[in-house]
Amino acid sequence: MNVLLDGRRRPFRTVTFDAGSNRVHLIDQRLLPHEFRIISSRNFQETARAIRDMVVRGAGAIGATAAYGLAQGACAFRGSDLRAFSRHVSSVFKVLKAARPTAVDPVNAMVLVLAAMRSGKTVLERQSLSVAAAEQFAQEDVDHCAAIGRHGLKLIRNGINVLTHCNAGWLAFVDIGSATAPLYAAREAGRRFHVFCDETRPRSQGATLTAWELSQAGIAHQIIADNAAGHLMQRGKVDLVIVGSDRTLGRTGEIANKIGTYTKAVLAKRHGIPFYVAIPLSTIDWELRSGFDIPIEERDQEEVLGAWGTVNEERAYVRVANPGSPALNPGFDVTPPDLITGIITPVGIFKPKDLWPDRKMLQERVRSRAGGLGSLRIRI
Amino acid sequence: MNVLLDGRRRPFRTVTFDAGSNRVHLIDQRLLPHEFRIISSRNFQETARAIRDMVVRGAGAIGATAAYGLAQGACAFRGSDLRAFSRHVSSVFKVLKAARPTAVDPVNAMVLVLAAMRSGKTVLERQSLSVAAAEQFAQEDVDHCAAIGRHGLKLIRNGINVLTHCNAGWLAFVDIGSATAPLYAAREAGRRFHVFCDETRPRSQGATLTAWELSQAGIAHQIIADNAAGHLMQRGKVDLVIVGSDRTLGRTGEIANKIGTYTKAVLAKRHGIPFYVAIPLSTIDWELRSGFDIPIEERDQEEVLGAWGTVNEERAYVRVANPGSPALNPGFDVTPPDLITGIITPVGIFKPKDLWPDRKMLQERVRSRAGGLGSLRIRI
Repeated sequence: MNVLLDGRRRPFRTVTFDAGSNRVHLIDQRLLPHEFRIISSRNFQETARAIRDMVVRGAGAIGATAAYGLAQGACAFRGSDLRAFSRHVSSVFKVLKAARPTAVDPVNAMVLVLAAMRSGKTVLERQSLSVAAAEQFAQEDVDHCAAIGRHGLKLIRNGINVLTHCNAGWLAFVDIGSATAPLYAAREAGRRFHVFCDETRPRSQGATLTAWELSQAGIAHQIIADNAAGHLMQRGKVDLVIVGSDRTLGRTGEIANKIGTYTKAVLAKRHGIPFYVAIPLSTIDWELRSGFDIPIEERDQEEVLGAWGTVNEERAYVRVANPGSPALNPGFDVTPPDLITGIITPVGIFKPKDLWPDRKMLQERVRSRAGGLGSLRIRI
Repeated sequence: MNVLLDGRRRPFRTVTFDAGSNRVHLIDQRLLPHEFRIISSRNFQETARAIRDMVVRGAGAIGATAAYGLAQGACAFRGSDLRAFSRHVSSVFKVLKAARPTAVDPVNAMVLVLAAMRSGKTVLERQSLSVAAAEQFAQEDVDHCAAIGRHGLKLIRNGINVLTHCNAGWLAFVDIGSATAPLYAAREAGRRFHVFCDETRPRSQGATLTAWELSQAGIAHQIIADNAAGHLMQRGKVDLVIVGSDRTLGRTGEIANKIGTYTKAVLAKRHGIPFYVAIPLSTIDWELRSGFDIPIEERDQEEVLGAWGTVNEERAYVRVANPGSPALNPGFDVTPPDLITGIITPVGIFKPKDLWPDRKMLQERVRSRAGGLGSLRIRI
């Protein structure tokens, strides 16, 4: 996507790799929206630290960063001993995996890179293959999001008002994003529309990241308190809701996403407003049989008791709540299929209940991303 | 209610009057929950300034403050000339009215004080009557809230979880509050229960004022992001919702209240959770024929774009949102009667649709507060 810098639009991805200097370049998402800065990581240890320190977040983005980090580590190896090289790559893998131990995307991405390297006969060949595989992983992430955009484009009619929640934007992926993909596609197609960004307390990713993205893309938008969505729907001001999902249950059509998503879905249902969820295929969970089995992370109370932002251009945490009062901070909620109009995927829009009957096709299409089996090319 | 000061519980009202020193004492609500301070106003001009500067807010509280301010102004008059006294009182009235020009409660309260003064034959008699009338107004506010508490008490069963939104607590009235009255009554009756305080963005009155009140009262509570209410209801963690109302339409049973109230009502309906609204009779509007005719105030964008609190014990505004992104900030929303289980009033609990059939009785009971007609004593 393009970022406005010194009055000019310049294209950026969330993460890129420069093979010449063997550096990984990352948008520092901790500073957004107040400052735009590219962090240039000189070695795989620095890349691991960037993942750990939340310079980069979001499933697609940390997957690509880990893939690049593995290639970066592989390319730093000097010598021609394949065994020593393998030991080195293995230790790079472990360092990058440990950077975000609960995330599945970095591991899946790195497994793909490892698999691609195997056909190399020399260290040099394997290094070269690792870079190509990491680039392919990142490009696939971009292609998948672009495909979500093409399928979702028809929903963004001229003149409509779209409500979004949290940030499933290009910052969470390598580019384009999932929930935002139809918006960017519509903008590209010259359509005029307006977006309400839910603030998305307690971490305010809507007011910070999504609003920043939409500003950069020149898409008309307004930030609203999460409390205002119901009122705006009641007054006929919302025509469509699009959100992302951290985990979609293939068996039931339930989706887990940022806390507050369920509330917007209930409101949309009451007002007959279409409610869509945009997802890459890799987030579909084919095992779990009930949304109640999805563990809901309880996050730090401080997120609810105050807010991060800037005071006099300095980053600061302001304590809002009554000192001494505790908070409860569930990070995610689960939206059942009866509230979901459609699930926008890179291979088309599905009714939530149609994921399971189509599982063979969907699992096949995602395989290259999730397990390192079969072709690395996704057929879209 | 009691406030914990230096380890001891001491009783406070939001506003009190000391006739001996002719001073109005106010809890400075701008500093809560971070500091508890009583402001002592020495003359009616200072009292007017306190109303204007939001030292005191909430319908019942600013009504009583204006009534006290009028008595304070009247008592400051020196001399025995009734005409000069009347002119003086008239100018006091104007100054206090101008302190919050859009509010109806200060005017209603002062009209009652003026009416009570008329039977006085001398300046001294009228001064004395003004103090008695202001005290009566304040006491009636307390009595009404206590009556709401008695009627609502039966809803607060042992072991339940109650969800509240915003602050319709004792700080908004002279004492006890409306939505909080059943909670305080239940606490008094020795019942054990737990309260979820909606943060209530963008002004966070739930996280600040309601949480502070409940802390002082020793009622178990947790602050939640507004986004979390739906999830908690879905998981069976909420048994009852009680909110206040700024305006209740007697003809339709619709209620206007802080933005986000409607959302909680929609969620409660989906989960079959009782949703109650607690109101003093003076907030019933018998004229409007539709909730769509209630003007919804659009408030300052800065409220949505950041948050007030403390940084290093200093009061500060932190800017959270993307610089340059605009916000939309509707202050209130309207909840229709199909979502409201009952309206708790000082004279009993009503189905929303039963207000209109009972209007004669309800209008009679409220008359002394709203129009200065009839007896000043409310028959409860």
